[in-house]
Amino acid sequence: MKIISSIREMQVFSESARNSGQKISFVPTMGYFHDGHLSLMREGRQRADCLAISIYVNPTQFGPSEDFEKYPRDFERDKDLAGDVGVDVIFYPEDKEMYPEHYQTYVNVENVTQNLCGMSRPGHFRGVTTVCAKLFNIVKPHYAIFGEKDFQQLVAIKRMVLDLNMDLDIIGMPIVREPDGLAMSSRNVYLKTDEREAALNMSRSLKIAKEMYDRGERDVAAILAQVRKYIERHPHTNIDYAKICDTTTLKDIGYIEGESVLALAVKINKTRLIDNYVFGNRLDV
Amino acid sequence: MKIISSIREMQVFSESARNSGQKISFVPTMGYFHDGHLSLMREGRQRADCLAISIYVNPTQFGPSEDFEKYPRDFERDKDLAGDVGVDVIFYPEDKEMYPEHYQTYVNVENVTQNLCGMSRPGHFRGVTTVCAKLFNIVKPHYAIFGEKDFQQLVAIKRMVLDLNMDLDIIGMPIVREPDGLAMSSRNVYLKTDEREAALNMSRSLKIAKEMYDRGERDVAAILAQVRKYIERHPHTNIDYAKICDTTTLKDIGYIEGESVLALAVKINKTRLIDNYVFGNRLDV
Repeated sequence: MKIISSIREMQVFSESARNSGQKISFVPTMGYFHDGHLSLMREGRQRADCLAISIYVNPTQFGPSEDFEKYPRDFERDKDLAGDVGVDVIFYPEDKEMYPEHYQTYVNVENVTQNLCGMSRPGHFRGVTTVCAKLFNIVKPHYAIFGEKDFQQLVAIKRMVLDLNMDLDIIGMPIVREPDGLAMSSRNVYLKTDEREAALNMSRSLKIAKEMYDRGERDVAAILAQVRKYIERHPHTNIDYAKICDTTTLKDIGYIEGESVLALAVKINKTRLIDNYVFGNRLDV
Repeated sequence: MKIISSIREMQVFSESARNSGQKISFVPTMGYFHDGHLSLMREGRQRADCLAISIYVNPTQFGPSEDFEKYPRDFERDKDLAGDVGVDVIFYPEDKEMYPEHYQTYVNVENVTQNLCGMSRPGHFRGVTTVCAKLFNIVKPHYAIFGEKDFQQLVAIKRMVLDLNMDLDIIGMPIVREPDGLAMSSRNVYLKTDEREAALNMSRSLKIAKEMYDRGERDVAAILAQVRKYIERHPHTNIDYAKICDTTTLKDIGYIEGESVLALAVKINKTRLIDNYVFGNRLDV
């Protein structure tokens, strides 16, 4: 397994792989791997000849009061896990390589980034789409694989790729959950025992919504009222948003007709977690 | 010579050329060719195995009160001229192919686009950098060739390519002038005889500035005073801007030390023209 920190070296590696007829899969990550990350890498491994990942905690997607500094990092452990699932190359750049002096270019997906996390985290998606545009130009993949837990991120990246005619396929993969239903997240490491218990109410509230939907409920206000009531009766929880949106536009809807997603962001004391459920899909809770 | 209007078809063509080891040169244009365009194509022809151009009057770089509708177009003539200089493929898309429904992604180069034309034409460079990002992803060139007449455009595109790690070289080529010194522009066709006479005062004022510089003048205010006085004493002229800027940051300077450009935008009645001179360079006026 190669570890490359230079942009130029990564581009030469990828260009040479492409020119020799290889297909490249790519999983961009911020590291501190859990089974969610590994499921993306396994998918990438199956799809292509060369599996590239990146490990980079991207500063431009964190707000000034967010957890960039304390975001968990463990490169040695990540490297071992990547080796185990058959990663061929890890792109592992430093900030000064990615954002040199006079850096000033940003990619904005203007509409689907307005609602949900875009409202709570101004500038977040600008940072995400910009770093993904950069990484796609550096790693030159045929496939890039993202988890559906960051649902709005996946929608924004698909939109960017479509709009800017980037010649690669974006693959979304199902949320991976702990046995108790908690969506896997590198930020789960922040949770103390009683906070973890409180966090479970996110996935449980999704299950309540699923059951209402399965019984025929289509009224958004009715479903959200139950979701909010369930989450709020538990300690440590503070709902950032609980919304049901069209999965293409990510605009709020009042009634469920087309494909719709229930998206949640909840602060468990200081830890902000997200989860979601697309109505009609499986939910392993 | 192939003419391709489908994005997918163009990408397949370019990917196949790249995979067979060919180098691709690319000249993006809005058509209505003059010798300036042709000089870019000749440079592209020399540098690579495959010479691609695009002809596309990009709506997103025109302001609402600008000349998008009446911008001159003559595809049949352009096609013949392109054939004569050895173009291999013309990418010639329609608006609905480039900006389909729900289009919403824009690339912003935030600093070097603030001054000069960025001030007079809000949104112009956002349109330019966005369409170039798209075209680079569609045509996949190794080299893209731009004229130095649109000096700020060249600086913004170089910055975008550097910042977003696009793996291609941007080549700037000298301004091509009419025998009387007028910088070639597709918009020159708008000029009536007396307006064309007035337009000549742009290049002549650059020559005045060059001569002051060559005699040792480095004070920006002194040079600009002469430039403005010269242009303004001619009929039909209305200076949009006349500025001297650092060529990297495009910020105004007070004294010429590093590489500096005198940039002009002048309205000749309704026709807005630009021209520039980088101090220390040749000027064929």
